[in-house]
Amino acid sequence: MPVPRLETDEEEVLRANRAFYLALQSLDPNQMAAVWLHEDWVTCLHPGRELIRGWEEVFESWTNIFNSTTRLQATISRPMVRVAGDTAWVSCITSVTSSYEEGFETAAIENTNIFVRRGGQWRLVHHHTSILPGREPSGTTKVVQ
Amino acid sequence: MPVPRLETDEEEVLRANRAFYLALQSLDPNQMAAVWLHEDWVTCLHPGRELIRGWEEVFESWTNIFNSTTRLQATISRPMVRVAGDTAWVSCITSVTSSYEEGFETAAIENTNIFVRRGGQWRLVHHHTSILPGREPSGTTKVVQ
Repeated sequence: MPVPRLETDEEEVLRANRAFYLALQSLDPNQMAAVWLHEDWVTCLHPGRELIRGWEEVFESWTNIFNSTTRLQATISRPMVRVAGDTAWVSCITSVTSSYEEGFETAAIENTNIFVRRGGQWRLVHHHTSILPGREPSGTTKVVQ
Repeated sequence: MPVPRLETDEEEVLRANRAFYLALQSLDPNQMAAVWLHEDWVTCLHPGRELIRGWEEVFESWTNIFNSTTRLQATISRPMVRVAGDTAWVSCITSVTSSYEEGFETAAIENTNIFVRRGGQWRLVHHHTSILPGREPSGTTKVVQ
């Protein structure tokens, strides 16, 4: 019987990174909460906004985003991962389409995600996004009243 | 005779972070080279551009930026530092004014800088910038020919 191959650290981190984007697509604050480390120093920079610090504030920001979004699709490309002990980071591009009551928008986003390993689990501690040049949000439509 | 207090890891990392912005202001590629780890996986996202990977490519990008810039001023604010073993990251805002032959521009930039400790020195391995919302580059002037 073949012995299942153990995941490498890099594979574990990439899985944690995918779990973050699945949580994003789920629009479920609890699924997002499962991905993050819940400490007062974690930081999050949503696209085109200012940095948020502390798990409570970060959680509130996700809840607000999810409440105002009806559907969200995120496709990951060019993931690069580095692991250094119990810290790791992923650099990746995401193509994100967000749908709202009033329409939708699409953006290509450059992401830096930093993870720390606690109790054998990789937890997100820093999320930094930039909208890529020449690929500004597009596709917004307004429903005619 | 008082014993000099040793720097904490956090202080060392903040010093390495300041050294990066001093290198930026110096417009000297060699001073910038002294700040980075020279490996093929280091990554750099200049404001409004796409990610560059590998020290040779990153060095070339700095050389090109410095060649086309006549003066650069960067002021750091809101530095937040985390150290985890031999890895650390700094989140900070910089107010950057770049002068060129043709004019100048000013931007407020959100930065994520990741460092690793090698041989007792903290070296920059990832630099991610985003231009802050509502503070797009401004002040560009064109010299009338």
